Amino acid sequence: MLHNHELQQGIRLACCCLPEGDMSISSVETSAAGSIVTEFSPRDAASNLRFSMIDTPLKQRSLEDQRALSDDLNSPLLSPRSLRALALQSGGSSVKVLADRSRGIKVMQDGDRPYGFAADIGTTTVVVYLADLCTGEIIDHRAQMNLQRRFGSDVISRIQYSCSKPAGTEEASRTILDQLDGMMQDLIFSHDLHPEDLIETVLVGNTTMLHLLAGVYPESIALSPFIPVFTHPVSCSMQELGFSRTVNGRALLPGSVSAYIGADITAGLYASGITSLDHPALFIDVGTNGECALWDTKTLYCCSTAAGPAFEGASILHGIGGIAGAVCGITAVIQDNQVQVTARTIDEAPPRGICGSGIIDAAAVLLDLGLADETGRMVSLEEDPWNMLKETPHGTAFSICSTPEREIYLTQGDVREVQLAKAAVSAGIKTLFSETGISGEQIGSVILAGGFGQHLHIPSVQRIGLLTGDLQCEIRPGGNTAGKGAAEVLLHPEALDALEDIRSSARYIELSSSPVFQMHFIEEMIFPEQENSNG
Amino acid sequence: MLHNHELQQGIRLACCCLPEGDMSISSVETSAAGSIVTEFSPRDAASNLRFSMIDTPLKQRSLEDQRALSDDLNSPLLSPRSLRALALQSGGSSVKVLADRSRGIKVMQDGDRPYGFAADIGTTTVVVYLADLCTGEIIDHRAQMNLQRRFGSDVISRIQYSCSKPAGTEEASRTILDQLDGMMQDLIFSHDLHPEDLIETVLVGNTTMLHLLAGVYPESIALSPFIPVFTHPVSCSMQELGFSRTVNGRALLPGSVSAYIGADITAGLYASGITSLDHPALFIDVGTNGECALWDTKTLYCCSTAAGPAFEGASILHGIGGIAGAVCGITAVIQDNQVQVTARTIDEAPPRGICGSGIIDAAAVLLDLGLADETGRMVSLEEDPWNMLKETPHGTAFSICSTPEREIYLTQGDVREVQLAKAAVSAGIKTLFSETGISGEQIGSVILAGGFGQHLHIPSVQRIGLLTGDLQCEIRPGGNTAGKGAAEVLLHPEALDALEDIRSSARYIELSSSPVFQMHFIEEMIFPEQENSNG
Repeated sequence: MLHNHELQQGIRLACCCLPEGDMSISSVETSAAGSIVTEFSPRDAASNLRFSMIDTPLKQRSLEDQRALSDDLNSPLLSPRSLRALALQSGGSSVKVLADRSRGIKVMQDGDRPYGFAADIGTTTVVVYLADLCTGEIIDHRAQMNLQRRFGSDVISRIQYSCSKPAGTEEASRTILDQLDGMMQDLIFSHDLHPEDLIETVLVGNTTMLHLLAGVYPESIALSPFIPVFTHPVSCSMQELGFSRTVNGRALLPGSVSAYIGADITAGLYASGITSLDHPALFIDVGTNGECALWDTKTLYCCSTAAGPAFEGASILHGIGGIAGAVCGITAVIQDNQVQVTARTIDEAPPRGICGSGIIDAAAVLLDLGLADETGRMVSLEEDPWNMLKETPHGTAFSICSTPEREIYLTQGDVREVQLAKAAVSAGIKTLFSETGISGEQIGSVILAGGFGQHLHIPSVQRIGLLTGDLQCEIRPGGNTAGKGAAEVLLHPEALDALEDIRSSARYIELSSSPVFQMHFIEEMIFPEQENSNG
Repeated sequence: MLHNHELQQGIRLACCCLPEGDMSISSVETSAAGSIVTEFSPRDAASNLRFSMIDTPLKQRSLEDQRALSDDLNSPLLSPRSLRALALQSGGSSVKVLADRSRGIKVMQDGDRPYGFAADIGTTTVVVYLADLCTGEIIDHRAQMNLQRRFGSDVISRIQYSCSKPAGTEEASRTILDQLDGMMQDLIFSHDLHPEDLIETVLVGNTTMLHLLAGVYPESIALSPFIPVFTHPVSCSMQELGFSRTVNGRALLPGSVSAYIGADITAGLYASGITSLDHPALFIDVGTNGECALWDTKTLYCCSTAAGPAFEGASILHGIGGIAGAVCGITAVIQDNQVQVTARTIDEAPPRGICGSGIIDAAAVLLDLGLADETGRMVSLEEDPWNMLKETPHGTAFSICSTPEREIYLTQGDVREVQLAKAAVSAGIKTLFSETGISGEQIGSVILAGGFGQHLHIPSVQRIGLLTGDLQCEIRPGGNTAGKGAAEVLLHPEALDALEDIRSSARYIELSSSPVFQMHFIEEMIFPEQENSNG
C-alpha cells in the first residue's frame, strides 16, 4: 500500500505495526495538510481596525483627589487581570489600554502583544489564523484535516455518531476542541506569544460543526424539519466553550442562517462582498454540502444541497483530500487516433489518489471521449473506441494513471457519485434561479468559495454541467472566504454587524420539500450532451 | 497554656507537637468561629426578587418554520451550557429559563436549584451565606476567622506583608480564595447542590480585602495619599477572580468609596436603610478600622479612622476574638466596701481571654472604680482603694477573673490601646459633626454595625467616651450589615443600583490631613470625667 519514498519517510500503516518500545506517532492525514486552501486576499490590514492601543495618562493624585486609579480609564468593568496590571502604575504615569471599538477592555504591560485567532472549522479541514490585533496582520496559520473525520466524513454521519451513544456529542466536541487547542498552542509557542495576550477567537463553521464545537446535541439538525438549537451569535469565554486554560480570552461564534447555512457561509458571504455588488451574482461553496447563494441586488437567497463528499474525494474509490500526491488535474489529448491522458498531482508528488478537481476533470474527459454517455453509463470494453477502459475488481473503470506501485482509476460507481453530487449542486442553483426569476445570463459574477473553487478547471465544471452553460460571466475562486470572514470579524469593527445584517435578511429556501428542486434534480442527473469534441 | 477540657477535646499547641504518623489537623481559630456575628434581619424573602424561573414554551417547528430553538427564548447570548440544556428539548415542549431582572440567563433542567453566595470578607472574620435565588431565602452560612490573619491582624500589616516579597499579593490572594472556596464547597456539599447551579456570588469587604481577593497589588492604599486601584464594582467570572472550577458562575464585587470606606460599608449603609431616614443618623462600624457615616437627611458623609485592633482583642495582652470562652461582659458591684467583679464568657465556657465588649466593660469599670484616671493612668497599688490592682510580669494590672488554670487581666498597656482606639473613633464622629454642623442631640438614631455592635453594653461605651454623652437617641446593633447588604445585592433587583447611588453620592472626609480631626483626637484621648458613681 505504501510507496518506497513513504517508507523512507517513516510512514507505516498503523494496522500492520506492532510497537516494540517507546515511540512517537503522528498522523499523516493531519500533518499532510499542506494543500488545504488557506489563502484569501486580505483587505488593507491597517484600515479601520477594531482594536487599538490607547496611551492613557493617570492623573497625579493627592489628598484632595483620592479617586481610584481605574477612574482615569474609560472602562468601568475592567477584569481582575487588568486591575492587577494597573496596580503596578501610579498617579502621574500612564498605562496602555487595549480598546475594542474605542472601549477599553484590558490594561497592557510593556511587551504585551495582543493577538487573536480566526478559526475556520470545515467538515474536512480546519484552519486557524493568527492575527496581530493592533496591526491587523495575519501573521501565520495552521491547517489540518478535521480529526472528527473518524466519526464520519460528512455532517450527517457525524451527527449520527454523536447521537449514537451517551457521550457521543462530548466525544466529538472534545476532539475538535483538543485539535484547535493544539493548533493554537502551536501558534502561540512558535511566535513566542503569551497566553494572557490572546484577546479573542472568532470561530466559524457550518451549523453542525458549531453545535459539536459547543458540545450541543445536534440530532435535530439531521431530522426533518431540520431545526438547529441555535443560529444566533454566541459570545462566551474560551473556557466556557471547553478550551484549556492555556487558551484564554473571549470566543465569538458568528451567527448562522439555518441548519445547513452556517456561519462559514455567512462569514464567506460577508467576506466575498457579494451584497455590495450592483449586479446579480452567485456564491457557491461546495464541500461535503453544497451551499449556494444568489444575490439579486436586493435580497440574498440561499439554499443548501447534500452534495455528498464526492468532490472532497471521500466517496470515490481512489479519492483523497487535496494533499500532496493527489491527482488534481487531468487532460486528454487525441493524437494519431490515440488518447494521451496526462495527470498532474499536487506538489508533483508521486500519485496517491485523486482529489475533487481531478475527479471532475476525469468525469469531463470520460464524457468528452465518449467513454460515458449523458446518463453516466460507462460504455462496455467492447464499445470503448480508445481502449482506455479496463476491467478491475471494482468493475469497469477508467485508468487515470499508473505507476509500478499503484494504479489510480475512476469506476462506474465513482461516476454515479459525481453525477449525484453535480445534480444536487446544479439543481440548487437552478432552484434559486426559479425562485428569483433571474437567469444565468443575468449573473454578473460567480464566486467559488473554499478549496473546491481553488483548483477547479472551469471548462470541466461546465462540461459536467455543475455550472450551467448559460453562465457567461467571470467565474472566480474566492479562496477561503469563511476564514477571511472570520478574520474580518476579528479585526474590523463593522464586520460582525454587517454579517448579522446578511444573516438576518437572507432568505433561506428549504430544498428537501421543494417540488421545483426535485424537478431540477432529476433533470440535472443527466450530463450535458457533447457540443463539440475538444478531446 | 491549655485547659484540661481543651486537652480532652484533642486540642494541642502546634509548636509543642511532633507528628508520629498520619494525622489530620484542624485549626481551632478557624473552626471555633461560632460566635462570629452572622445574623441580620432579612427583609421579606419573597418580596421583589431579582431572579425568577420562567416557563418558556418552544413553538412546534415545521419546514415552514425552521427557526432555531433558541429563537424562542428572550435571550440571544445564552451560554454554551444553556444551549446544551436546550438541545435536550424540542419544538412543542417548554423549558425553564432562569431570568435575572426578567432577562433570561440560563436554561435549567429538571431538578436544578439555582443558588448564590453572599460573602462578607472581614479583616478578622469571613462569613459566607448560601441563598436560594428563587425563594430569596438564606438557607445556611459558614463563618470562619480570616486565614490571612497569619500575615497580620490589620489591613496595614496585610498590605505590608503582600508588598514585602515578590509573590506576597498572590499568597494573600490565594489564602482568601482557597478559604472561601472551601467554605462554599462545604455549603454545596452539605446541601447536596450542583456546582453548575451556582449562579452568582456577591463579595463585599473593605477596600484592602477586595484588592487582595482580586490579587491586586495594594501598596498605594497604605501610602499617602491613599489611592485604591479600583473602587468601581467588578463583575467577572469566579474563575477570572481565581476560584476553582468547582465554584462557578459570576462574581460581583460591589463598589467602594475610597481606600478606607470599602464595599462592606457601602453594602452596610444600603442594608441599614440609613439614607431613607428622615432624621440625622449615625452609622458606626468598628472593627480594626473604625468607619463612621453621618446622614444629615440629604447627604451621607463618611470617614475612616485607624481604630486599631484593640476592640477586636488583637493588641490586648489577654485579648481574643469573640469566640467561646471570651470574657464578653464585666460588672462590678460595691458591697460592704468590697468590690465584686463578675465576668461573663461567651457560651459560658471557661475563660480563655477577653474580647471587645469585655475590654470596653473593663475600661469602664476601671474608670468607675477610680482605678484609672481620665488620662488613662492606672493608680499605683498604694493608691488602689479597693485592692483590685496587682503587680504582674506586665506591670500593674486589673484582675478580671482567675481560675486555677488561668488569670485574665487588663494591663496599663491595654488601657492605652483602648484609649487610642476610643479617641480615634470618637474624634471621627466629632469631625463629622463639625463638618456638617449637626450635633449629637440632633441625631435620631445610631446604628452599630458588625460584631462590635452586637455584644456591646451601651453604658460602658458611653462611659469610656467612645460615643459622646450628648447622643440621646436609640443606639441599636445592626448585626452583620455588610453581609446583609451583600445578600440584598444578590437577591433583590434594585439593591446594586441603590448601593451605587450611595457610593457615588457619599462624601468622603479624609482624616489624616484634617486639623479638625487632629484637634478632636487630642481632646478625645482623655476619658470623660466620672459623672456619678454607678460602680
